Amino acid sequence: MVYLDHAATTEVRPEVIAEVAAGLGALGNPSSLHGHGRTARRAVEESRERIAEVLGSTPHEVVFTAGGTESDNIAIKGLYWSRHGQDPRRRRIITSAVEHHAALDPAHWTAEHQGAVHESLPVDDRGRVDPRTLREAVERDPDSVAVVSVMWANNEVGTVQPVAELAAVAAEYGIPFHTDAVQAVGAEEVDFAGSGVSALTVSGHKLGGPVGTGALLLARGLAPVPVLHGGGQERDVRSGTLATPLVRGLATAVGLAVAEREKHTDHLASLRDTLEERVRAVVPDVVVNGDTDRRLPGISHLSFPGCEGDALLMLLDAKGISCSTGSACSAGVAQPSHVLLAMGADPDTASSSLRLSLGRTSTGADVDALVEAIGPAVERSRAALAKRRGGR
Amino acid sequence: MVYLDHAATTEVRPEVIAEVAAGLGALGNPSSLHGHGRTARRAVEESRERIAEVLGSTPHEVVFTAGGTESDNIAIKGLYWSRHGQDPRRRRIITSAVEHHAALDPAHWTAEHQGAVHESLPVDDRGRVDPRTLREAVERDPDSVAVVSVMWANNEVGTVQPVAELAAVAAEYGIPFHTDAVQAVGAEEVDFAGSGVSALTVSGHKLGGPVGTGALLLARGLAPVPVLHGGGQERDVRSGTLATPLVRGLATAVGLAVAEREKHTDHLASLRDTLEERVRAVVPDVVVNGDTDRRLPGISHLSFPGCEGDALLMLLDAKGISCSTGSACSAGVAQPSHVLLAMGADPDTASSSLRLSLGRTSTGADVDALVEAIGPAVERSRAALAKRRGGR
Repeated sequence: MVYLDHAATTEVRPEVIAEVAAGLGALGNPSSLHGHGRTARRAVEESRERIAEVLGSTPHEVVFTAGGTESDNIAIKGLYWSRHGQDPRRRRIITSAVEHHAALDPAHWTAEHQGAVHESLPVDDRGRVDPRTLREAVERDPDSVAVVSVMWANNEVGTVQPVAELAAVAAEYGIPFHTDAVQAVGAEEVDFAGSGVSALTVSGHKLGGPVGTGALLLARGLAPVPVLHGGGQERDVRSGTLATPLVRGLATAVGLAVAEREKHTDHLASLRDTLEERVRAVVPDVVVNGDTDRRLPGISHLSFPGCEGDALLMLLDAKGISCSTGSACSAGVAQPSHVLLAMGADPDTASSSLRLSLGRTSTGADVDALVEAIGPAVERSRAALAKRRGGR
Repeated sequence: MVYLDHAATTEVRPEVIAEVAAGLGALGNPSSLHGHGRTARRAVEESRERIAEVLGSTPHEVVFTAGGTESDNIAIKGLYWSRHGQDPRRRRIITSAVEHHAALDPAHWTAEHQGAVHESLPVDDRGRVDPRTLREAVERDPDSVAVVSVMWANNEVGTVQPVAELAAVAAEYGIPFHTDAVQAVGAEEVDFAGSGVSALTVSGHKLGGPVGTGALLLARGLAPVPVLHGGGQERDVRSGTLATPLVRGLATAVGLAVAEREKHTDHLASLRDTLEERVRAVVPDVVVNGDTDRRLPGISHLSFPGCEGDALLMLLDAKGISCSTGSACSAGVAQPSHVLLAMGADPDTASSSLRLSLGRTSTGADVDALVEAIGPAVERSRAALAKRRGGR
């Protein structure tokens, strides 16, 4: 089996599995006052410190969550509610058009049901948000902006956004700026304080940590309204018993991902370049999407003219190769990617795409397998689509 | 170290640790369409079936969440939003006065910020909600009730509620009835369909499963508005990548907890009775709180007249004994328990209490240690409090 879908989820590191298992074997609720509770609390706080240190925040700024989706929901809905509550003029939620559903859908819901206005910033044909576009949107009426959210790097095409420049625009007007950095941590240099963002989403399972855990880095002074109410854990931002074993696993994974980043990205970029070169040798009209000058090292997003991505996915799957047409979360839905459409692709082109994503354990043999299978798959998919279109 | 705080969190079963570790070692996002994804999806669906089977629901009715707090939030806020959206007259959220904060706080917030009206049902001196009280509240204006939530068994005093009778009252009027069964599964016979409830909260770490996972059993036809928006997983009720390893661990834990329930409860009830008898021999005026005719087998909630629970907790902790004054989640806050106050205790009595809670691994030696330590602790706490009060 060949796995080329590391952007959907990637191998958990053995050190992380050991850490989670050790955590599961240690008794104590970090909210309890007694000895067992204090031991658990210490493990949580040490994990918080490790994450803060490698991501450039203070420990106090780390809020543990159940994953990227929850972190995005807190940042967007929670900051909207809190900023709108302070000043009812603040109704606008500004995002890019290419956000993950975990950011877009909270924005949509808040607009439909909670009095917000959602504005989507256009991107260029490489998927980039121009900081001037954000500036224009903000300056139309700065006092009405509740929160801005633009992802660090796109999960489908891998384009890296000019996050620091974007955050600077928001900061000029005192507007909180959130970024979903789920795909970026471990692949890009992510420095919370240095980037100037106010809130940053981290997910465990995209970087070798456990699934079901993540964090929201949240600048001091921001108090989003909770999405989960209850016992008041995590500075009242996120209630629910702190999952000590998962938090320990997350800290181990983030620590290793950041420490090994350069080695990791060299490995991925070199494999990816080989992959693209060799695929092009087999399918000369393949199109590489995203910002080829500035993208994540592990994602290769390719359009195969005349093909259907879904068909290619199935044909490759039949050869034991796992890849994706877009993000796993919406992969079950047969519609062209909103990311590709926002980049100006026509629906046919958008639907002709595959995302091949590499990870820590990817090898040259994975690329060999793909290169061997892609030619016949493209041929079959083209023939099927041509026949279907001819028969219309 | 003696652990008498199993109601806060309890030992994870070795079988569960093995299952989670195996899950962490298996690659694949259950939302992915390829072979790796399908294998993960199969593991999730088998877990769903196992949980449904032992808890009396259909697999379709099992929604995986990150734990009890999230399940309660979905049930209360989500059902409020959805029922209020269908009919704006539906504004009332009826809960008992002794709910966990994970249910009370969502109700409070929804009332303060989302147009709901929260009504709290009184309990008797044993902590019981009388079904007639619920009936009166509903019948005052049945069309205005959005949702009713009464816990299966109380986490502080262990009182078991007449859930089926309460659910029947709500069902008469077509009102969804939610119950937080976090403390009940594995200790009480919990049959989702048989009980007549519409939504039921399960937590992993209270029954030997991993922390950071849980479920909401949700009757067909109910579509709570999501608390977490995003990829649309879990029939659009709960977005976020499904945490396959945690789901597998949860299913293993729930399966074992239900299978071993009778043996388990016999063990706990017998230890608890011994504990109470022997504590009474040392502290004759100790008061046992809760419904001594109908309570959870593992919880002994005791008031020590003239003492402060916080002081007792610290004195026992100094002897290596871990217990609680109430729920772990609010234990950091020095205020009398809302549960005891709702049961009619005066603040001094409420503040003089300890919760000693037993679990699967509790032994007679744990009871011995407590019995040995409790006399001197009560004596010291009484002396300190008397001195402080004398000095006022």
